[in-house]
Amino acid sequence: MDEAGTVLDGGVVEVSDGRIVRVASEPGGEGADETVSARGLIVVPGLINTHCHLSQQLGRGLADDVDLLTWLHERIWPYEAALTEEDVEVSALACALEQIRNGVTTIADPGGQHVDGAGRALDRAGIRGFLGRSTMDEWDGVPEARQESSDETLAIQDELAERWDGAGEGRLRFSYTLRTIFNCSDALIEASVERAQRLETPLQMHIAEIPAENEHSRATRGTTTVRHLARLGALGPWFLGAHAVWLEDEEIGLLAETGAAVAHNLASNLRVLGIPRIADMLDAGVVVGLGTDGAPANNRMSLIDELWAASLLQKGLRLDPTVLDARTAFAMATRSGAQALGAAGEIGSLKAGKAADLVLIDPQTVNMTPIHDPVSALVTALKSENVHSVMCAGRWLLHDRELLVADERAVLREAQERAEAVARRAELR
Amino acid sequence: MDEAGTVLDGGVVEVSDGRIVRVASEPGGEGADETVSARGLIVVPGLINTHCHLSQQLGRGLADDVDLLTWLHERIWPYEAALTEEDVEVSALACALEQIRNGVTTIADPGGQHVDGAGRALDRAGIRGFLGRSTMDEWDGVPEARQESSDETLAIQDELAERWDGAGEGRLRFSYTLRTIFNCSDALIEASVERAQRLETPLQMHIAEIPAENEHSRATRGTTTVRHLARLGALGPWFLGAHAVWLEDEEIGLLAETGAAVAHNLASNLRVLGIPRIADMLDAGVVVGLGTDGAPANNRMSLIDELWAASLLQKGLRLDPTVLDARTAFAMATRSGAQALGAAGEIGSLKAGKAADLVLIDPQTVNMTPIHDPVSALVTALKSENVHSVMCAGRWLLHDRELLVADERAVLREAQERAEAVARRAELR
Repeated sequence: MDEAGTVLDGGVVEVSDGRIVRVASEPGGEGADETVSARGLIVVPGLINTHCHLSQQLGRGLADDVDLLTWLHERIWPYEAALTEEDVEVSALACALEQIRNGVTTIADPGGQHVDGAGRALDRAGIRGFLGRSTMDEWDGVPEARQESSDETLAIQDELAERWDGAGEGRLRFSYTLRTIFNCSDALIEASVERAQRLETPLQMHIAEIPAENEHSRATRGTTTVRHLARLGALGPWFLGAHAVWLEDEEIGLLAETGAAVAHNLASNLRVLGIPRIADMLDAGVVVGLGTDGAPANNRMSLIDELWAASLLQKGLRLDPTVLDARTAFAMATRSGAQALGAAGEIGSLKAGKAADLVLIDPQTVNMTPIHDPVSALVTALKSENVHSVMCAGRWLLHDRELLVADERAVLREAQERAEAVARRAELR
Repeated sequence: MDEAGTVLDGGVVEVSDGRIVRVASEPGGEGADETVSARGLIVVPGLINTHCHLSQQLGRGLADDVDLLTWLHERIWPYEAALTEEDVEVSALACALEQIRNGVTTIADPGGQHVDGAGRALDRAGIRGFLGRSTMDEWDGVPEARQESSDETLAIQDELAERWDGAGEGRLRFSYTLRTIFNCSDALIEASVERAQRLETPLQMHIAEIPAENEHSRATRGTTTVRHLARLGALGPWFLGAHAVWLEDEEIGLLAETGAAVAHNLASNLRVLGIPRIADMLDAGVVVGLGTDGAPANNRMSLIDELWAASLLQKGLRLDPTVLDARTAFAMATRSGAQALGAAGEIGSLKAGKAADLVLIDPQTVNMTPIHDPVSALVTALKSENVHSVMCAGRWLLHDRELLVADERAVLREAQERAEAVARRAELR
């Protein structure tokens, strides 16, 4: 076991009732009901995807190589408006299967449509998740049919929290969300903070995505997004800001001081937003987790690829290969991700008492051979094809590379058919 | 077929004697000896890795998270000095297998040790390759045992060219190489240019890797590396410069004017060198191919991952999602790669008369579903696990995800054992 409790390369994990009861170098005295050999494999905690739009999976490839406003107004909003609840259920299920194949056992959705569909899909996939609904009360540029008042959007979320928080034997939580400061009033922000604190799940919000956002915030609130949120009292350990690309030193300081966390989505940032100062945030003590964002922005939905590239990119920007070393990077996908979701007591490391969310890695492949340092190899060489088996809450979701929770081919066929139908209804291409 | 001749999504490829004889929408009149159904698959040309150190595969993970001088002097040089010819053969074979699994059918080695070992490995792997030997005649910091004069190093290469150029039924070529301007005299550069032109294979050289290189060139030659090479007459269509990270506008212009090509190695650049101006080079008309570099620098040796990340990175740097669109990016891995190697008449597209170097892609996986645009999906969503079958010169190297050219597990076991032994001999860790 490495010092961080995140990589087991030789040893035993004992699981009972969905929890890890013992991690040791040798089996304990009492016999187990079932023993699974992981000889030759590496055991790590389930990876944590802190930013993943479940309802966007069917839109993968609908918005490639276009500028941000085209991306949002002409592709994503029409796509989202054309989704039915059944579409979202298939989208979320296909997304969850991709996450499982990438070793992810916890997903945080920063807000989608038809949350009931996403909830049913995550329940079926057996994965852990924070469900969220796309939340706005200011509607410039948004189709009229989707417009809601603050009270309406809060009431709908309260109802969803009632229905979904604690569902799936506790695997599912509900999380209040705010789309961006462009679309959310201060009253909505304040009411959401209060509810998130009461529910004890993260308040998710897209922040500092583009320079124009800070300009909008200056024009309407007198200062930048993060400074304004700090002044409102919205920042705190409950706050999970996604992207956080355009920050000044003082704003990084505000995130660190208040204990607010950041979800870093490298690929989608590069595609449409810019490059966030992740190394500076880590130096300042900000909690940073990794996310994939949604399929139309990435388009790979692989936390493992984000891990590889996130580590490399910060080295290149700083011109310092020692930045974001393998142990720091791997923590972003595990312990820091758990902390960002306020769930560090439950998930993110291999420790007795925590949830039995485990991934078995098979390193005996062309891309991971040879290995000189297992932790380093998990960041620099690991690919999704090395994910051998995945357990969440004590249940195998993937075993020996076979998905046990759904008929994968059938789900993918339906995803393709529904994706084409949605694109037709939305009149995309 | 797309307009560039690089993606076949519905149609037939007829192959005879190692060459493509016909690409069409329907089978021709004459019966084939053998028909392979690719229903549901996408056919693309074999990908081209324009920069791949075959002898470094056993060093994967030996130099993670360390600065460039530590990387080179304390890790790579001792590692290279400890290699035997048998080590290199296993290293090159393991590397070739990884390349095949990533859809690569042509590798250019910018210079290794024990070229005979690498040649035997590529011959066995059935892949196309440009073999190269690490070439230096100025030796500051290099172990004395490896030091050679210009005449010695040229004579050894002439002998290797004699032995390997045209071997493997023409699949193998020899390529003259120059390590860097730090280590190569002008006389060696000029003699190598002459030989490369005579042999009609690329002259490979690492250029503009770090600012200190340009400073060294200024101090010893009075100007930067690329300007000096232009003045020497070394730049031309035969010249393949690797990395090319620290270039000024004028130098990009010199590469474009002379027809010199660049091998872009995104991951290794980010790790130890910096970020090259690829979008600017493409705008200026420079021919740019993709490369993985060597395993200790990347550490994934996946051209597919380079393709994904290279497209994203330039978008992020320019803050313009339309930069390096999918078709431009995919061309870097195929047609432009072929052009960079002076082999555009032979490889890089699916056209009658070209070598039968084909890859079948299975897109029916969690990471590629749904597909709205196949070419775009090949850049944004493709992963090595989608590589279903690989043919080189009319021979299947991989079929239905099974490697046909070697016992993969046995090669990997030997690679791990030899890697540990080399690290011990080199006293690394």
